[in-house]
Amino acid sequence: MKQIQRLFDIHPWKIATKTLDKQNRRLQESLTSIGNGYMGMRGNFEEQYSGDHHLGTYLAGVWYPDKTRVGWWKNGYPDYFGKVINAVNFLSLTIKVNNTTIDLATIPYEDFYLELDMQNGILTRRFTVKVANATVRFNFERFLSITKKELAVLKVTAEVITGSATITIDSALDSNVRNEDSNYDELFWEEKASGKKNTGTYLTVQTIPNNFGIERFSITAMMKHNRDSLKTLTAPLAISDSFSYEVKAGETISFEKRVIILTSRDIAEEHQVTKAAELLATYNESFDTLKKEQIEAWQKRWELADVVIDGDPAAQQGIRFNLFQLFSTYYGDDERLNIGPKGFTGEKYGGATYWDTEAYAVPLYLALAKPDVTRNLLKYRHNQLPEAHINAQKQGLAGALYPMVTFTGIECHNEWEITFEEIHRNGSIAYAIYNYTNYTGDETYLQKEGLEVLTAISRFWADRVHYSKRHQKYMIHGVTGPNEYENNINNNWYTNMLAAWCMKYTLTSYRRFENDTPVTISKTEQDKWEAIITNMYLPFDDELGVFVQHDTFLDKDLMPVADLDPTDLPLNQHWSWDKILRSCFIKQADVLQGIYYFSDQFTMEEKRRNFNFYEPMTVHESSLSASIHAILAAELGMEEKALEMYERTARLDLDNYNNDTEDGLHITSMTGSWLAIVQGFAQMKTDQKTLRFAPFLPSKWDSYAFHINYRGRLLAVTVTKEHVTLKLIAGDKIAVTLYNKNYELADEITAPITH
Amino acid sequence: MKQIQRLFDIHPWKIATKTLDKQNRRLQESLTSIGNGYMGMRGNFEEQYSGDHHLGTYLAGVWYPDKTRVGWWKNGYPDYFGKVINAVNFLSLTIKVNNTTIDLATIPYEDFYLELDMQNGILTRRFTVKVANATVRFNFERFLSITKKELAVLKVTAEVITGSATITIDSALDSNVRNEDSNYDELFWEEKASGKKNTGTYLTVQTIPNNFGIERFSITAMMKHNRDSLKTLTAPLAISDSFSYEVKAGETISFEKRVIILTSRDIAEEHQVTKAAELLATYNESFDTLKKEQIEAWQKRWELADVVIDGDPAAQQGIRFNLFQLFSTYYGDDERLNIGPKGFTGEKYGGATYWDTEAYAVPLYLALAKPDVTRNLLKYRHNQLPEAHINAQKQGLAGALYPMVTFTGIECHNEWEITFEEIHRNGSIAYAIYNYTNYTGDETYLQKEGLEVLTAISRFWADRVHYSKRHQKYMIHGVTGPNEYENNINNNWYTNMLAAWCMKYTLTSYRRFENDTPVTISKTEQDKWEAIITNMYLPFDDELGVFVQHDTFLDKDLMPVADLDPTDLPLNQHWSWDKILRSCFIKQADVLQGIYYFSDQFTMEEKRRNFNFYEPMTVHESSLSASIHAILAAELGMEEKALEMYERTARLDLDNYNNDTEDGLHITSMTGSWLAIVQGFAQMKTDQKTLRFAPFLPSKWDSYAFHINYRGRLLAVTVTKEHVTLKLIAGDKIAVTLYNKNYELADEITAPITH
Repeated sequence: MKQIQRLFDIHPWKIATKTLDKQNRRLQESLTSIGNGYMGMRGNFEEQYSGDHHLGTYLAGVWYPDKTRVGWWKNGYPDYFGKVINAVNFLSLTIKVNNTTIDLATIPYEDFYLELDMQNGILTRRFTVKVANATVRFNFERFLSITKKELAVLKVTAEVITGSATITIDSALDSNVRNEDSNYDELFWEEKASGKKNTGTYLTVQTIPNNFGIERFSITAMMKHNRDSLKTLTAPLAISDSFSYEVKAGETISFEKRVIILTSRDIAEEHQVTKAAELLATYNESFDTLKKEQIEAWQKRWELADVVIDGDPAAQQGIRFNLFQLFSTYYGDDERLNIGPKGFTGEKYGGATYWDTEAYAVPLYLALAKPDVTRNLLKYRHNQLPEAHINAQKQGLAGALYPMVTFTGIECHNEWEITFEEIHRNGSIAYAIYNYTNYTGDETYLQKEGLEVLTAISRFWADRVHYSKRHQKYMIHGVTGPNEYENNINNNWYTNMLAAWCMKYTLTSYRRFENDTPVTISKTEQDKWEAIITNMYLPFDDELGVFVQHDTFLDKDLMPVADLDPTDLPLNQHWSWDKILRSCFIKQADVLQGIYYFSDQFTMEEKRRNFNFYEPMTVHESSLSASIHAILAAELGMEEKALEMYERTARLDLDNYNNDTEDGLHITSMTGSWLAIVQGFAQMKTDQKTLRFAPFLPSKWDSYAFHINYRGRLLAVTVTKEHVTLKLIAGDKIAVTLYNKNYELADEITAPITH
Repeated sequence: MKQIQRLFDIHPWKIATKTLDKQNRRLQESLTSIGNGYMGMRGNFEEQYSGDHHLGTYLAGVWYPDKTRVGWWKNGYPDYFGKVINAVNFLSLTIKVNNTTIDLATIPYEDFYLELDMQNGILTRRFTVKVANATVRFNFERFLSITKKELAVLKVTAEVITGSATITIDSALDSNVRNEDSNYDELFWEEKASGKKNTGTYLTVQTIPNNFGIERFSITAMMKHNRDSLKTLTAPLAISDSFSYEVKAGETISFEKRVIILTSRDIAEEHQVTKAAELLATYNESFDTLKKEQIEAWQKRWELADVVIDGDPAAQQGIRFNLFQLFSTYYGDDERLNIGPKGFTGEKYGGATYWDTEAYAVPLYLALAKPDVTRNLLKYRHNQLPEAHINAQKQGLAGALYPMVTFTGIECHNEWEITFEEIHRNGSIAYAIYNYTNYTGDETYLQKEGLEVLTAISRFWADRVHYSKRHQKYMIHGVTGPNEYENNINNNWYTNMLAAWCMKYTLTSYRRFENDTPVTISKTEQDKWEAIITNMYLPFDDELGVFVQHDTFLDKDLMPVADLDPTDLPLNQHWSWDKILRSCFIKQADVLQGIYYFSDQFTMEEKRRNFNFYEPMTVHESSLSASIHAILAAELGMEEKALEMYERTARLDLDNYNNDTEDGLHITSMTGSWLAIVQGFAQMKTDQKTLRFAPFLPSKWDSYAFHINYRGRLLAVTVTKEHVTLKLIAGDKIAVTLYNKNYELADEITAPITH
């Protein structure tokens, strides 16, 4: 049914192609994005390229509050739409050979090769051009240092094969960059200073003023090359150094550019030039040394995180691509940052922070990084608690409402059915605290910051419910559940269940730490919450034995996706919005998201009934859908369905499954393939005190293996056709449960695969 | 609770003030708007005025498809937002006295007086200025001819009281006008030609191109003065004639300007200048003759339509203001036109046509104008049937969906919860056919055009319902009822009831004219509709004995408006949108709108129970709400409530009740005060074959009287404290029912008031 679009070759560690696909250049750019958590960019070319493409360099935490564009205003709407903004293009090289500008859109070329080396974090490219009596082979190498976050490094070599050439290079810092998605086509930057020092050539720019009291960001880019420039030219919002080489046949020139990027998030504008110069002087290792450092650092990341799949090279490439791009976006170094839905790979969606982080990314970072990384993600929300209170106040409600989309904690999206109604997000913020505490065994966060967040969220729920006298139940009207293909529904089972759970978890935790926590919850308030918890309306259908997605879901014309005309799919590209809303078709796990969250609270029979009822009506048109279904299908022994769902998540971008990767990668849903393997195929569970596994191997695969960090241990898990092996690589021995059998893992345990 | 803002004095026939209220100039402008159905304008000053104001001249049917501004696109959204556009300012006079520009915002003045004479349709203004040794008294008169629709007439006299003055006047046609509400701040006009002929000075402009295939409108304005100009100046999009007078103390000069406005709706651009010159030559009567003609024409209108209220001058002024502005907007001369929500008085809302026309305006025009006027309103929809089919197709549905907002029949609004969901509007289009047929007794429209429209609407409903297997009922999910304070609800009683009624009325009418109607409805289709009619789900609550607004309405936290903190009102200015949606508070009649429509189908007890249940939860924040409640309250004998509701509708704009009249008048809801008197206080009913009345007199009033046209007769109805008198003024004798007693009205009937 679904056509896939695969631009790059299958390779276990590389994203490589010999084709410059001019029709799909934007898609190529998305897929060859690189980042170091501090900055990142789409796979734009260094030299001029006049064909269709999307220039994009992004700096973590640097954004602009774009004036909202809506048709009709409604009370409570956010004032602005926060936008990751396209920042200074520091790659820019204008290269001429014998006065002809190298632009692959306009001149002939041969031997094109483009490669993103995921193992080492390096992007390379080469091609050969014949211009004005000279044949020149160009080679480009680029990386953003993951050990020196402010540093970008690039190197170009040009070998003259025949003829002789005058090669000129203008190397620029260029802030004449726009967001394609800006609401009013504005240029978001203004120039503050530019110039040349003997330490480097610099450009300082600042975001234009805004009317929303949002911080203006200043950034300085300073560049240095491996030789002195002939001249330096300034233009509005740009500065460039010029170089010229006379090269004979057989000779090769090597041109290096290093750039330091500083932002006012770390360094005040007035100190940026000095600091950049200082860093350029400090980071004075050779290109090869810097590159070696980069390779070693990535190798360390892979040692902890790599997932090895034998027997399915496409699946292998998919999981590594996802992990590579996730780590390029966020590696937990800065608690002020979060994981944007497009990372550094595009502009779409706006905002840096969605509930995706708590629901989908936290489980991965818990297992693949130090606990501090997840703790930073939790702290990010704790730091934004005052703003979450403001969001709730804007709706006339008590407590805290975490935003759907944000940079600062203040809501900055603008569809009423989302910002006002998709409030289940608040539950995922609470769930992440529970998840972290269960996983790490560290209760210190819960005791202080955690309880502050939980209490504020519970206060929101307590005010947001209403009591239906007629039903003598507490209800939550007017919500949008995780299934965004329904809006403004009443008593979404997931939201109601999660709200009651939040209040219960808050109360339980509070009573545990009552004498040593910053929070106070009065007896009256506790009683009120207890009443809500006890009397929360949780729609259930006796006849079907399933939780009901919302009040009137069962009144719909229910039918499986399989009964649809395949040409109607994806629905969001073929059906009018109202038709989608009225239909029974589900965008992503909704009831099943709740069953996934609280897996230990439901029987296998309950899980099966709900899965069998809802999954056939699910179109999986959210990139976040497949992983949850893979996990539940795996648990229910539906191996084929689980693998189908894995494949849908693992190569979502590499195969352009949703036909929208040209806009950027689906960063937050990239955790899905890892979740599908670890929580799905391997059935890892951490919600109780003992770490549990119950793996199976998809029949197409020969084996898979992964590592996890768990409570100070490093474990390796290998699953082959016959056996599961758990190996303790570092840390003290630990109790584990494998296929419901308890073990003490001191060194290694091997058990046969059990179905 | 509610602060009223009353800028003009109470007077039975005049809107007059001695104050130039610079703080509320926009409100003054709205309230002194004039129009002749073909063109109209806000009460802008002729001479320069540099204070805050809102310039606005509008030409019926001349509009522009402004690019839609929405945050996130959804499939099926209209491409553009159709906008009534501000057109050439032909009033413009730049007046200087001894070289000082007359601008009341900047120079001192005395004896200011502003008057809209509703009886005669003339706007006058006067003031005295002392500038540069001269005291000059200015007087302005203006009208838009209702007998020569293309003609605007204005006259200025200037009397020099002391000193002597050089008075210069630059009289312009100026198309440098913008819409304040344009989405991208565009100028919607470009110049085609301008020049001076001996017949007049002209300017031809055209709307700028658009990408939506919408007709570009050309308009020509040609002006002529009562003397020759000294010179003619052109500027981009403008042209002006200059005059100069030397005036001594005691002398008065009189300056007249006549303007012909032609549009490409009637005259092709290339013929406009010739035609305008021809009309200027034809309309060569003196100012006084033209004025007399205007006065006589308005008098004829009032003879048919006036409502006289004794004992309550404010109520008297209110009803006349409403009728004056309604007739200035629409008097049924052109079947291509409809009644815009702001008429010629402002830009807000966009579009020319809402369901307001069918629901609220048709009953008034039926009674106060010839049947042709209403028939033209019905034909307007019939003409747009192809576009209504397109609207339905865009939603993937059969049949016809009339738009929420339109010029051409194509939907041009852009909130999904309205355009996709507020589909009850389709029912009102059908209801107007039923209403017209009942009222006039003319079945020829129903038989042909009517049945085409009804059948297409019924086909829409038949496709829009779905069958709920669980309930074995047909349902309509995902709608917004007339109460727009709830969105995306299921089984809105009003919508479901109206849909079933539409299908039933269509079938009944079809079977009646089956052999002589252009429509064919197959047996299969008829059976399908019958099944839907019989099994339509109509929510009813046994316990309360009321129709239920929608599926989960009774689960809400139900409470009367009286229990709210008064500072929360109006809710739409104080509450976040989600809070409004979740609340039980109702914007305007919803269930009660259905009971109003089909008054004869419900018992008094049913009406009372539903009124008593819903009205206390109704905030009447739509200008369309009060009239329906006044009518039902009157029928239920709740005289105090009925009068409260009347007062709310009658002076809505004059007292700026909703604090938004500065944007323009609420034209379509102006019918409300008339409906409240005639269908409310007088209880006129026309839904059966006999005309019925059952009047009462509000205790504050001494009497009221009105005229109606009914089936070729002109009747006068007078209600005093003691008696009702029905008088047949023209036409054959007719059967009438008064207080449930049958009479034959040949000359006059008088009966005592019965409670």
